Amino acid sequence: MDSIPPIVLTTDFGLADPYVGVMKGVILGINPWAAIIDLTHSIQPQNIMQAAFVMGASWRYFPPGAIHVAVVDPGVGTRRKAVLLITPRASFLAPDNGVLSDVLAQHLDNPPAGASATVSVPPGCAAYQLAEPSFWRPRVSNTFHGRDIFAPVAAHLSRGEAPAALGPPVAELTYRPSPRPVREGRQVRGEVVYTDHFGNLVTNISESMAIEDGLVRVEIKGRGIDRLSLTYRDANTAGEGHLLALVGSHGYLEIALADGSAARQLPAGTGEVVTLYYG
Amino acid sequence: MDSIPPIVLTTDFGLADPYVGVMKGVILGINPWAAIIDLTHSIQPQNIMQAAFVMGASWRYFPPGAIHVAVVDPGVGTRRKAVLLITPRASFLAPDNGVLSDVLAQHLDNPPAGASATVSVPPGCAAYQLAEPSFWRPRVSNTFHGRDIFAPVAAHLSRGEAPAALGPPVAELTYRPSPRPVREGRQVRGEVVYTDHFGNLVTNISESMAIEDGLVRVEIKGRGIDRLSLTYRDANTAGEGHLLALVGSHGYLEIALADGSAARQLPAGTGEVVTLYYG
Amino acid sequence: MDSIPPIVLTTDFGLADPYVGVMKGVILGINPWAAIIDLTHSIQPQNIMQAAFVMGASWRYFPPGAIHVAVVDPGVGTRRKAVLLITPRASFLAPDNGVLSDVLAQHLDNPPAGASATVSVPPGCAAYQLAEPSFWRPRVSNTFHGRDIFAPVAAHLSRGEAPAALGPPVAELTYRPSPRPVREGRQVRGEVVYTDHFGNLVTNISESMAIEDGLVRVEIKGRGIDRLSLTYRDANTAGEGHLLALVGSHGYLEIALADGSAARQLPAGTGEVVTLYYG
Repeated sequence: MDSIPPIVLTTDFGLADPYVGVMKGVILGINPWAAIIDLTHSIQPQNIMQAAFVMGASWRYFPPGAIHVAVVDPGVGTRRKAVLLITPRASFLAPDNGVLSDVLAQHLDNPPAGASATVSVPPGCAAYQLAEPSFWRPRVSNTFHGRDIFAPVAAHLSRGEAPAALGPPVAELTYRPSPRPVREGRQVRGEVVYTDHFGNLVTNISESMAIEDGLVRVEIKGRGIDRLSLTYRDANTAGEGHLLALVGSHGYLEIALADGSAARQLPAGTGEVVTLYYG
Repeated sequence: MDSIPPIVLTTDFGLADPYVGVMKGVILGINPWAAIIDLTHSIQPQNIMQAAFVMGASWRYFPPGAIHVAVVDPGVGTRRKAVLLITPRASFLAPDNGVLSDVLAQHLDNPPAGASATVSVPPGCAAYQLAEPSFWRPRVSNTFHGRDIFAPVAAHLSRGEAPAALGPPVAELTYRPSPRPVREGRQVRGEVVYTDHFGNLVTNISESMAIEDGLVRVEIKGRGIDRLSLTYRDANTAGEGHLLALVGSHGYLEIALADGSAARQLPAGTGEVVTLYYG
Repeated sequence: MDSIPPIVLTTDFGLADPYVGVMKGVILGINPWAAIIDLTHSIQPQNIMQAAFVMGASWRYFPPGAIHVAVVDPGVGTRRKAVLLITPRASFLAPDNGVLSDVLAQHLDNPPAGASATVSVPPGCAAYQLAEPSFWRPRVSNTFHGRDIFAPVAAHLSRGEAPAALGPPVAELTYRPSPRPVREGRQVRGEVVYTDHFGNLVTNISESMAIEDGLVRVEIKGRGIDRLSLTYRDANTAGEGHLLALVGSHGYLEIALADGSAARQLPAGTGEVVTLYYG
């Protein structure tokens, strides 16, 4: 028996309702051997950008061929398309509403900045519209395509169904650019794009910018941090109130508090400006 | 290797404590190949009716033969029976306290209304009392039959154990009727029976009642909605404050708010009256 | 195909972030057949003692050979060791920070009381330092050893890798003794060590102490309970406000409230003193 690519779920459904369990039931009805992993179901309701960040930061830790399913879908039942994006390392099933933006950006040479738009399917990738009802549940609701379309299609894919059977190729996908850090002279101004359970503030400032020679100060809400730490419990830290700046596991600069929550202490959250000063 | 029917768990245990994990450990000790799915563990503590609704609305999305386990069990360790109900499409392990009421109602021609009672096992179904300790953990606590009785019995069933080996047949099961909509002339008066994570208010008014010809108004807390929507983002909606009425994925009339929470905006929750007026 | 020992995860990561899902992705990339069970991810951030209690109370319900992974790791990236402890019935991967204390105590004849220290690896057990990077992710972060070290090592172990290949044996492990009940004349004074989702207050007073002959009164916050109950709904209970004392499923004395939350009603939580009086 060959290995079956896992199906990885990202939704804003929460875990209190039976919605996630029902999707898994539908999947197992089609592929009883499917390995199903929850990435998270705690995306804020209808927060497409948060889901895009989480998927973009996580997909590379899954085995090649993993089938990612994103159901953050405020437009369910309207004319928005449902799509499959195939990259060299993974497959992504999602509504075509921008939830794949971070994954797309990682596969484009020059991802567009500026306003919401569409992008061409990146080189080496392919995309299809989910248009073939024979891979869906017999009766499709207007309100729960996670159960009626995405789950059964994921299950069929995990059994080896050919992507091209699912519907016609599409050339462009919706793209909602996430905020990018801005460089001005000897400064880089980024922002917090994700706050985790520990109160760590994950910014959009990449590791390469953060470890650049000459960094003299990281600033958030008027408080300065004068060096990068390596761990959440850096013994040499001299920053105010033990506020730390470090490159976190996502690969981005994080603001953290030794043995505490930076989000609560500052307080700060998504959108807060973080500035790097180089000497 | 044949497909193994999945074991589907519904409890009020929450996910913070190790109770759910421990049940899964017990299951895997008996059947290492079991596929275990969480339907939900967020049933309100000891809210039997909520669990009955969730299971009744969800079981049909699981593969035939799925083994549903419901542990919402305020009477654990007392004389309440533990039972197995087998329907043509699924098996249900549960305390005999009414948690199977919605499943039973769906298999009865004339489910009793009125006060709490018992019903006969529906035609085409069978039920057994769990009375054979050789399928339980060697030492059974008075406080955690999920771990000591239901989990091991589910695991044995998933390996193909014969239901009749588990204990004697039972002819009647506890039945706690859920509130039913009342028709009075050109009105139907129902109520909210479930509130989901998005703040959608799920009523007990079935799709067939909701789509009946001549519906002119849906009313909740004095606010009227004059048409049914098809999606949560219905462009043509003219209702006050974008309150929507639609047939949701459970198959019942729901009150929702476009891009928001109807539960919070109204505010309203379980038990709130919803009235349909027909012209 | 032989049975694969399950991998059981205990962390303080919560379920909102993608961290747990990412660990599972790493595991499946190495062992696509791994059965992964969540014990809990709701350990309070960096609460090593809580994790130690939960694991000590739960491991015996998992199949022999289960691979437990504990990632409650405030010192991640510092010089604290990462270790594998092998007991006759299970394996435990964890930072060497005391999170294995309850498991160790259960395997020692005379676990030390008093201040934090180290203990020798118990007889019949073995321990290894995780020191062989070929079993880790190629690039190890300073902030997420759950993903970069513990998950891949667990996956390799579940495939049958020899423990001794992972690194050199270690003779001593960090041990942080949990509070023990104190006996003074005809009293035993213990304390609440865990509060569950139902508001049951789990003490450190073992079943054998609780069921000792002559128990006349259990006292918490000045309120007395004059007998042990067998169930959470004990019909014969005459205690004030239906407060109950019973031996719970963890094997310890619990204070509970019939159909309610003792934690909320008293109110009380971890550290609250519970005294047993014998006649």
